[in-house]
Amino acid sequence: MSGEPTPKKMKATYVHDRENFTKVYETLRDELLNDDCLSPAGSPQAQAAQEWFKEVNDYNVPGGKLNRGMAVYDVLASVKGPDGLSEDEVFKANALGWCIEWLQAFFLVADDIMDGSITRRGQPCWYKQPKVGMIACNDYILLECCIYSILKRHFRGHAAYAQLMDLFHETTFQTSHGQLLDLTTAPIGSVDLSKYTEDNYLRIVTYKTAYYSFYLPVACGMVLAGITDPAAFDLAKNICVEMGQYFQIQDDYLDCYGDPEVIGKIGTDIEDNKCSWLVCTALKIATEEQKEVIKANYGHKEAESVAAIKALYVELGIEQRFKDYEAASYAKLEGTISEQTLLPKAVFTSLLAKIYKRKK
Amino acid sequence: MSGEPTPKKMKATYVHDRENFTKVYETLRDELLNDDCLSPAGSPQAQAAQEWFKEVNDYNVPGGKLNRGMAVYDVLASVKGPDGLSEDEVFKANALGWCIEWLQAFFLVADDIMDGSITRRGQPCWYKQPKVGMIACNDYILLECCIYSILKRHFRGHAAYAQLMDLFHETTFQTSHGQLLDLTTAPIGSVDLSKYTEDNYLRIVTYKTAYYSFYLPVACGMVLAGITDPAAFDLAKNICVEMGQYFQIQDDYLDCYGDPEVIGKIGTDIEDNKCSWLVCTALKIATEEQKEVIKANYGHKEAESVAAIKALYVELGIEQRFKDYEAASYAKLEGTISEQTLLPKAVFTSLLAKIYKRKK
Repeated sequence: MSGEPTPKKMKATYVHDRENFTKVYETLRDELLNDDCLSPAGSPQAQAAQEWFKEVNDYNVPGGKLNRGMAVYDVLASVKGPDGLSEDEVFKANALGWCIEWLQAFFLVADDIMDGSITRRGQPCWYKQPKVGMIACNDYILLECCIYSILKRHFRGHAAYAQLMDLFHETTFQTSHGQLLDLTTAPIGSVDLSKYTEDNYLRIVTYKTAYYSFYLPVACGMVLAGITDPAAFDLAKNICVEMGQYFQIQDDYLDCYGDPEVIGKIGTDIEDNKCSWLVCTALKIATEEQKEVIKANYGHKEAESVAAIKALYVELGIEQRFKDYEAASYAKLEGTISEQTLLPKAVFTSLLAKIYKRKK
Repeated sequence: MSGEPTPKKMKATYVHDRENFTKVYETLRDELLNDDCLSPAGSPQAQAAQEWFKEVNDYNVPGGKLNRGMAVYDVLASVKGPDGLSEDEVFKANALGWCIEWLQAFFLVADDIMDGSITRRGQPCWYKQPKVGMIACNDYILLECCIYSILKRHFRGHAAYAQLMDLFHETTFQTSHGQLLDLTTAPIGSVDLSKYTEDNYLRIVTYKTAYYSFYLPVACGMVLAGITDPAAFDLAKNICVEMGQYFQIQDDYLDCYGDPEVIGKIGTDIEDNKCSWLVCTALKIATEEQKEVIKANYGHKEAESVAAIKALYVELGIEQRFKDYEAASYAKLEGTISEQTLLPKAVFTSLLAKIYKRKK
């Protein structure tokens, strides 16, 4: 055995963990800092811009759960088997994964400005930094630019280069369209409960969350695995959209019923008048009298109002409805995943396992 | 003659004017409104989003001078001759031209938020509309998405599809980098005149204005004309950057010395503490005593402060310095344009003729 070549040495030693994934971030970030327009030609002005740019990235890109970014490798490994991957393939999967994290950072910086949020990932929102303010409006453009700079550097010669750019463009359009639906369906500071329907809710969630959080990593992994069949991408899209809806509904459930110690924040969807799955479901089954309770209390900051809504949720059995929904959605997804023959089941089951019955 | 085929009929009747150019905008805008994610599936929610999207575009994209967008056709016609162009080529040139106008709209909406501006093109800034506000932060993302949606629809099968996407990505990066340089060199509400050097000024102007206003339309026209020689693109970049610098310096000159009736606004660069070519030039040649006058008065709203700065400009002969710069820059550009043999001179002279000694 000792005399054999060891072409799989790297794969045997490669562990797909947060630490290794983060190393790829640092490589990509340093490459970006050496971009033609950022690299300092000895001028303090260019140097200052480069330092700002580094901080924009380090503050906003790597601090999340990284589930979306790390999923690209998981999908690729599910299709090709982890032992069949070269060092270059692993790097490329993780580089694409980071492009998704950059996309998310871009949207989160923008969303926080629009929502007037205070904190994000346990630190002040970027735009809340005294020196930043509205400069953040340009910073999130820069964050988005990083995606295409990384794609160009690492995928320019790849057969799927244009396809990858199309994928990121389409996902950006879908996500900002979802944000538009959200902002126009449930504008901040105004209440129109007639718009809080399940259909509207699902449309917002699909565009705003499901495409970039679920379909994008799966599609990136599929592209890297060399899959070209449009039917396989359509199938993945359908499954991922359903998973994304399920994921967001869980999020809404946890906002109300999760343990603040575990989820790391105190939910405020009721106070903030959010078009949450819980209130949409409540409105669907409420009597006229119960609807009046929602109208009178939803979106109010007072503790009594929040308590009135929570009491109504109990009355309507909303928590059980969520559990029924969760079980039904899981069963339906399982069924779709086993019945299809276009993709290895692990592509989806590895994702689903991470989110099913999650507590945070 | 009457029996001959008339393959050039369209070209003979095509007039490259604002009206025909604007028709292409309407076609592209309507195509965008039928995008999968925007087209209403009978739901009032999707309908509302579609209407919003239409208004974002109509309010922000077509109202400018359109010089940048119309230049793509001019460049293409300069290379291939206007009679050699098919209807499809004319449409594609104008579609790319509109992509540049969309890019500009995207940046202007963002810049106005960051600068706290009140009006743009004779109407309130988009974010100043009462119903818009910070939703504008998402709207300019949508405006940018339009670029890639148009490119995909009309250039997906073009040999240069990836090159065109790269070009728009790079230009976006350069422009937002220029905005970062501007914001960090001359932050709103703070004054550090030591940063107002000619070098810093030219670097800001090059990134923030020259690439997207001059190089991008020329490069788009060159791509459509089938030019592939990297040396031709490098040459075009150098000439366009110099033209862009000249254009911005004119802009700064007109802000102070232009006729408000002609330029359509009253310049406020002095009051607004702008890192203008005039103040950079003044600081370069001022005595210590004169510098004190600048320090004491630049960036102040009071009429006396503005008058003190204008008097100092007279003392330092700034207007004549601009005229000398203009003559020298024009002569240098003319020289470079005639000496090069990679591109028809008309590519550049048609652009230069539009801006030389302009009054607005």
